[in-house]
Amino acid sequence: MLLPGLGAVATTFIAGVLLSRRGLARPVGSLTQMGTLRLGSRADDPTPSIREALPLTTLDDLAFGGWDIFPENALEVARDAGVLEPHHLDAVAEELARIEPMKGAFYPRYVRRLNGTHVKEAESKADMVAQIREDIRRFLREHGAERAVAIWCGSTEVFLAPSAVHQSIEAFEAGLAKNDPSISSSQIYAWACLKERVPFANGAPNLTIDFPAAWQLAREMRVPIAGKDFKTGQTLMKTILAPGLKARSLGLRGWFSTNILGNRDGEVLDDPDSFKTKEVSKLGVLEDILQPERYPDLYGDLYHKVRIEFYPPHGDAKEGWDNIDLFGWLGYRMQIKVNFLCRDSILAAPLVLDLALLLDLAARAGLHGNQEWLSFYFKSPMTGEGLQAEHDLFVQSMELQNTLRQMVGAEPIVHP
Amino acid sequence: MLLPGLGAVATTFIAGVLLSRRGLARPVGSLTQMGTLRLGSRADDPTPSIREALPLTTLDDLAFGGWDIFPENALEVARDAGVLEPHHLDAVAEELARIEPMKGAFYPRYVRRLNGTHVKEAESKADMVAQIREDIRRFLREHGAERAVAIWCGSTEVFLAPSAVHQSIEAFEAGLAKNDPSISSSQIYAWACLKERVPFANGAPNLTIDFPAAWQLAREMRVPIAGKDFKTGQTLMKTILAPGLKARSLGLRGWFSTNILGNRDGEVLDDPDSFKTKEVSKLGVLEDILQPERYPDLYGDLYHKVRIEFYPPHGDAKEGWDNIDLFGWLGYRMQIKVNFLCRDSILAAPLVLDLALLLDLAARAGLHGNQEWLSFYFKSPMTGEGLQAEHDLFVQSMELQNTLRQMVGAEPIVHP
Amino acid sequence: MLLPGLGAVATTFIAGVLLSRRGLARPVGSLTQMGTLRLGSRADDPTPSIREALPLTTLDDLAFGGWDIFPENALEVARDAGVLEPHHLDAVAEELARIEPMKGAFYPRYVRRLNGTHVKEAESKADMVAQIREDIRRFLREHGAERAVAIWCGSTEVFLAPSAVHQSIEAFEAGLAKNDPSISSSQIYAWACLKERVPFANGAPNLTIDFPAAWQLAREMRVPIAGKDFKTGQTLMKTILAPGLKARSLGLRGWFSTNILGNRDGEVLDDPDSFKTKEVSKLGVLEDILQPERYPDLYGDLYHKVRIEFYPPHGDAKEGWDNIDLFGWLGYRMQIKVNFLCRDSILAAPLVLDLALLLDLAARAGLHGNQEWLSFYFKSPMTGEGLQAEHDLFVQSMELQNTLRQMVGAEPIVHP
Amino acid sequence: MLLPGLGAVATTFIAGVLLSRRGLARPVGSLTQMGTLRLGSRADDPTPSIREALPLTTLDDLAFGGWDIFPENALEVARDAGVLEPHHLDAVAEELARIEPMKGAFYPRYVRRLNGTHVKEAESKADMVAQIREDIRRFLREHGAERAVAIWCGSTEVFLAPSAVHQSIEAFEAGLAKNDPSISSSQIYAWACLKERVPFANGAPNLTIDFPAAWQLAREMRVPIAGKDFKTGQTLMKTILAPGLKARSLGLRGWFSTNILGNRDGEVLDDPDSFKTKEVSKLGVLEDILQPERYPDLYGDLYHKVRIEFYPPHGDAKEGWDNIDLFGWLGYRMQIKVNFLCRDSILAAPLVLDLALLLDLAARAGLHGNQEWLSFYFKSPMTGEGLQAEHDLFVQSMELQNTLRQMVGAEPIVHP
Repeated sequence: MLLPGLGAVATTFIAGVLLSRRGLARPVGSLTQMGTLRLGSRADDPTPSIREALPLTTLDDLAFGGWDIFPENALEVARDAGVLEPHHLDAVAEELARIEPMKGAFYPRYVRRLNGTHVKEAESKADMVAQIREDIRRFLREHGAERAVAIWCGSTEVFLAPSAVHQSIEAFEAGLAKNDPSISSSQIYAWACLKERVPFANGAPNLTIDFPAAWQLAREMRVPIAGKDFKTGQTLMKTILAPGLKARSLGLRGWFSTNILGNRDGEVLDDPDSFKTKEVSKLGVLEDILQPERYPDLYGDLYHKVRIEFYPPHGDAKEGWDNIDLFGWLGYRMQIKVNFLCRDSILAAPLVLDLALLLDLAARAGLHGNQEWLSFYFKSPMTGEGLQAEHDLFVQSMELQNTLRQMVGAEPIVHP
Repeated sequence: MLLPGLGAVATTFIAGVLLSRRGLARPVGSLTQMGTLRLGSRADDPTPSIREALPLTTLDDLAFGGWDIFPENALEVARDAGVLEPHHLDAVAEELARIEPMKGAFYPRYVRRLNGTHVKEAESKADMVAQIREDIRRFLREHGAERAVAIWCGSTEVFLAPSAVHQSIEAFEAGLAKNDPSISSSQIYAWACLKERVPFANGAPNLTIDFPAAWQLAREMRVPIAGKDFKTGQTLMKTILAPGLKARSLGLRGWFSTNILGNRDGEVLDDPDSFKTKEVSKLGVLEDILQPERYPDLYGDLYHKVRIEFYPPHGDAKEGWDNIDLFGWLGYRMQIKVNFLCRDSILAAPLVLDLALLLDLAARAGLHGNQEWLSFYFKSPMTGEGLQAEHDLFVQSMELQNTLRQMVGAEPIVHP
Repeated sequence: MLLPGLGAVATTFIAGVLLSRRGLARPVGSLTQMGTLRLGSRADDPTPSIREALPLTTLDDLAFGGWDIFPENALEVARDAGVLEPHHLDAVAEELARIEPMKGAFYPRYVRRLNGTHVKEAESKADMVAQIREDIRRFLREHGAERAVAIWCGSTEVFLAPSAVHQSIEAFEAGLAKNDPSISSSQIYAWACLKERVPFANGAPNLTIDFPAAWQLAREMRVPIAGKDFKTGQTLMKTILAPGLKARSLGLRGWFSTNILGNRDGEVLDDPDSFKTKEVSKLGVLEDILQPERYPDLYGDLYHKVRIEFYPPHGDAKEGWDNIDLFGWLGYRMQIKVNFLCRDSILAAPLVLDLALLLDLAARAGLHGNQEWLSFYFKSPMTGEGLQAEHDLFVQSMELQNTLRQMVGAEPIVHP
Repeated sequence: MLLPGLGAVATTFIAGVLLSRRGLARPVGSLTQMGTLRLGSRADDPTPSIREALPLTTLDDLAFGGWDIFPENALEVARDAGVLEPHHLDAVAEELARIEPMKGAFYPRYVRRLNGTHVKEAESKADMVAQIREDIRRFLREHGAERAVAIWCGSTEVFLAPSAVHQSIEAFEAGLAKNDPSISSSQIYAWACLKERVPFANGAPNLTIDFPAAWQLAREMRVPIAGKDFKTGQTLMKTILAPGLKARSLGLRGWFSTNILGNRDGEVLDDPDSFKTKEVSKLGVLEDILQPERYPDLYGDLYHKVRIEFYPPHGDAKEGWDNIDLFGWLGYRMQIKVNFLCRDSILAAPLVLDLALLLDLAARAGLHGNQEWLSFYFKSPMTGEGLQAEHDLFVQSMELQNTLRQMVGAEPIVHP
């Protein structure tokens, strides 16, 4: 597994896999490790665990590598991050300490609040791609591995709309050669991975692989990709609650969401341009679920606002507070307040695992290009042009499970 | 429409129908009035409103009657309840004032905190059934109506387990004749309705129609029935949230729910025996959704506690507070707090409407006996012996919609 | 009473006085109307109401006038604001409708989100002062009144630091003559009032009267003044909670406050420059109460953040959410969350009344200049140079009561 | 120091003193260790720390002993309780392990949910007193100590009203001899301590020392006493918030408080008779602060309800949720919700320390009998007959500080 961005999420993920291997903790939150898959009718009820039903790579067969713009090894990063307790880190300290990041590809204009010190030098962005491809090949050699998967666990970049350079493989390669400013660091990693036929998922709201040239390359190289922006915390709650309220024909007048968090992610998002990238990712969710154009009386006047606030006392313990103004019979108003004391990396780590194993499985099954059935994991599912993303967690879950059923030759099932 | 229990819920419902008829307010929360039904594939997207797609009785064709143990008319009750604002009640005052309750069948042992003054006298419970049947026939005559539907909107009764008298039609009729103490007031209403072929839904957690003799009678008389306990407020939230957390393989260690409310319902539930009836209805929800036997690592240790507190300052504005202790990756703990400032009658009224229209439709479509596809509306869906109730709101919603599709000859659809 | 800014606060205040006069509602929240004053020892316990103890102007003797930049009369404004229920406004509709605002003095650069249409034209700011002085004299004549009090109920202006023009009476008058850009609209009102010997209190965080020249003029004209920024909602809660936690030597690591509100105030504060004025007013509170320099172990690392968000669904119903990170014995962490569903104008209106009556009383008692004993009512109490403001609500309350005791010749009392 | 009840609170306290001695943690929450005392006028501002100003016993001079009905030593108890983190306990493990409880005096009828195994046998309650007195003398001998202080850290007992036996020393001693059932275990400890001239504070709501005979004995033996029921968590918040709302003449219509906790305290309070003891202690607070007889318009209709729920997932992390229904100007309603994620033992431990040091100081200063100036620390301050307790935290704080000032010969100060 290759992780661009060896920070709190990545090290929480790696430490968790190491602990799970040894039976010292459980990979809770991971569907591939904890979930089941019903095959056949309710009467027979053959419901094996997903691990039994599908030929997934096992935790024992994983090896870990990554890139970062700071030189600390995974143990040091995890200690700094303060997500996992000392007794957990102690138990896998040696293995973690051996994981040292490769130098990062970093152009400061795309992530303003960070100052990397452990960075590659390159003559051009094309050269940067080449260096990362070489890193990948070396990683495979050193670990005697046949194949790899990459999951972007790095920072949110400033908002970038796709430009001309993103429209075709040729344009993009030309852009790499002449250092086109529309090509950000994360796009460079993604491009390198695709060229090496490494499936790639994007855990941040950045452009990264969400543009025509990347999709085209993924299809050409026959590599599956997925994205974008891990669905954790507040947005996860939204995609649970909103479909429920809609199912009952309850109206919505307002939804105010604020988040307070104190980790590096919070620091980066304190920059308005990075926040904009995130905001776009977070705001679309409700509109797509509620379909105000179809239900104007219920959702036509919804006022939706999302805020993210850097708040150091919380560290990685992200806290969300939502105020939901709903209305029922005859328009009478009610309110729901949701206070989520969550942990950012704890919610994200199992998604890294699931995406890695499922993308790897997809690649072996011959699937390539954008894997919409993995929308379940993302705040902003990537969709084909002109199509609306599916945000409803329950529909996403069904699509994911039916795709898995299809892989083992079982019939799709209407509900679990 | 016949409503045993002409209190806050019933009058909020009636006033709302009257206001909606005149275009003075919208029947929000009612799927039959506000919802749509997709027929066919996503590409064609023929998605008429449910009202267009199905031959439902229209709001204009409804007439209202009911029974209560207090003599106030619907206007007086609604003013006392304080649910609707004066300007709404003023607009339909005359019509409401004309709705006067028929005398109630009331045995105080089943509802301890109330003292009815407007009650029938009867020589036996069998005689009580006969009087109610006569009420029903008179109501139909007076309104020139062909058919009726009854929805229980009365109080929660003390906890009663089914006894011998509930096992067959014969045993029950014998019990009525000799005033068997296991037969409560609500069972008497239900029996009278079934004998008159009036479809019956139960909005409270009482036994009422949830016993073998009633099911048998419903099948024999070819009457559809549904129950029990309107799914509003906190339990509605539970059946939205729990499936979402489960879909993501997140674990649960504890779920504490408290409710504070100050209406007559709260007063009744302050009696421990009535509370027990409600508690049984509320506690089963999580276990059925989470399947701890299948996911012992995630839900085997869940501690679930539900409290209801009488708190006069809130009146009908029921407020729920939930603390949810969940855990994720490696068992790390998180918390969700949900504070629902809801309105009991506002959430229940649209369910009365939907259940009436859908039961009436079902009767005309020849469906009879327990209508499990209406589980969507209930905290404790009635199920056949040995079967587990479906509590997941999203699965319930799909079953309801597929049943509607079937009625119009369309194919079932996997997701909306 | 003269109210610059005839908006939601001012009209809620006026309507409330009119309703109270007629016994249709109670002036809750007003210390002068609802409070008591203990005189003498606990044993005797002579505790008259404040109204009995002090020669305050009665509600019956008040007349109301004001200025605004929109032409609507007080009834129209109150209906638009939606703070008071129709039945309350109906009862005093005629009197409210008679209160029409005088044209406002308005320079748009100081309040960016509003566009006044009902504004004075003036050749210079000095001329503007003269016009307002003429307004005051006409108001007194028309109402046969001997004296007036003015309370600023207008908007928050953009942040302005005191400049050279604010340092002396001469400099300020010269600035008025040559339209100095440091002189904002609210300063013009204040200056006119002081020149007319009208006591003035400032309910907004603006400079208005908080600069040396205004203080000097107040002393010269022997007029009492008070300010600034009504202490309502979240800051009120802070000045209650923080002294309590400090009394118990509990430490604080973080305090995050967010406000969502949808009235005109919220719209104005959506402008970053106006928000800055408010933010300065709100942030100082904790530091002054907690004295981190004296208690570095407990409060030296406190991270305090305040946000205000424009959220139209709430209208005047301002809602605050606070997350407080505290720590106790051995540094172990705890959290307090406070969710305040408040109503901005309902909390502010009684302060307008109290300040008017108490400033008037002070003037008659010969007090002039800044009245620090009225700090109780303000988020940012004005203090003499080099002195720290007293923010602790309990200390403020004692100072206020002891000043009242002094006025009636009673001994100060250590506690109520 | 002698601690009847060597459970979570006592061991958290002891461990904290040991850690503080070594500079490994700070005794936050302790006024005697973290607080200051202003002596003289604001201008001079001589404000030494309390430790400098008063001849308090230092942490280094304390030795610890206690009784319990389970045999585990302080280290084992602390590990089980799970309040302190392993790294803290490890640092003082040896010292904690050496603290083994003396056998407890235990009559199960007074604490129903516990079954002690490490208990004294005695022929009569008088004999039990004698045994405890012997324990005290032995403790002093073994530690070469001159004097002791006892703080009750044991469980809440079932509700007991004072009976004839509690009216005089003679009656009580006679009752001890004949095993009067009105004499509970905690009273036996208190009596033994008073007889040995050991100052005694009561951290639970039990009768213990709150009856005429005990007060009489305390005066006769010239021993200071204090009680009762440590003011932590929700009640602490109430005594902070209620005085603040009252200061602003805001009305209160309802206050609902629920607590969820999972430690042994929670288990004991699940017994309705023990809960009653606690409920009486908790309910009086608001009435005494708000004085509804003086302010009937504001507080005459207050509905106050308190609930405590045993909820194992939380362990010692007690969580409170309060809903406060307040009203302002013209009676318009607002709500405050307070969610306190607190830690029971963390808040109680510093009170044990302060009470021990201050009672010891009081004894040396010649004070005896009930020390009302220590009301600051208690939910139910003990008061002389016919007097109302002072519950306002700010008044209590002032009284405490002025008593300290008096001890050092300084003038009382009106406010800090």
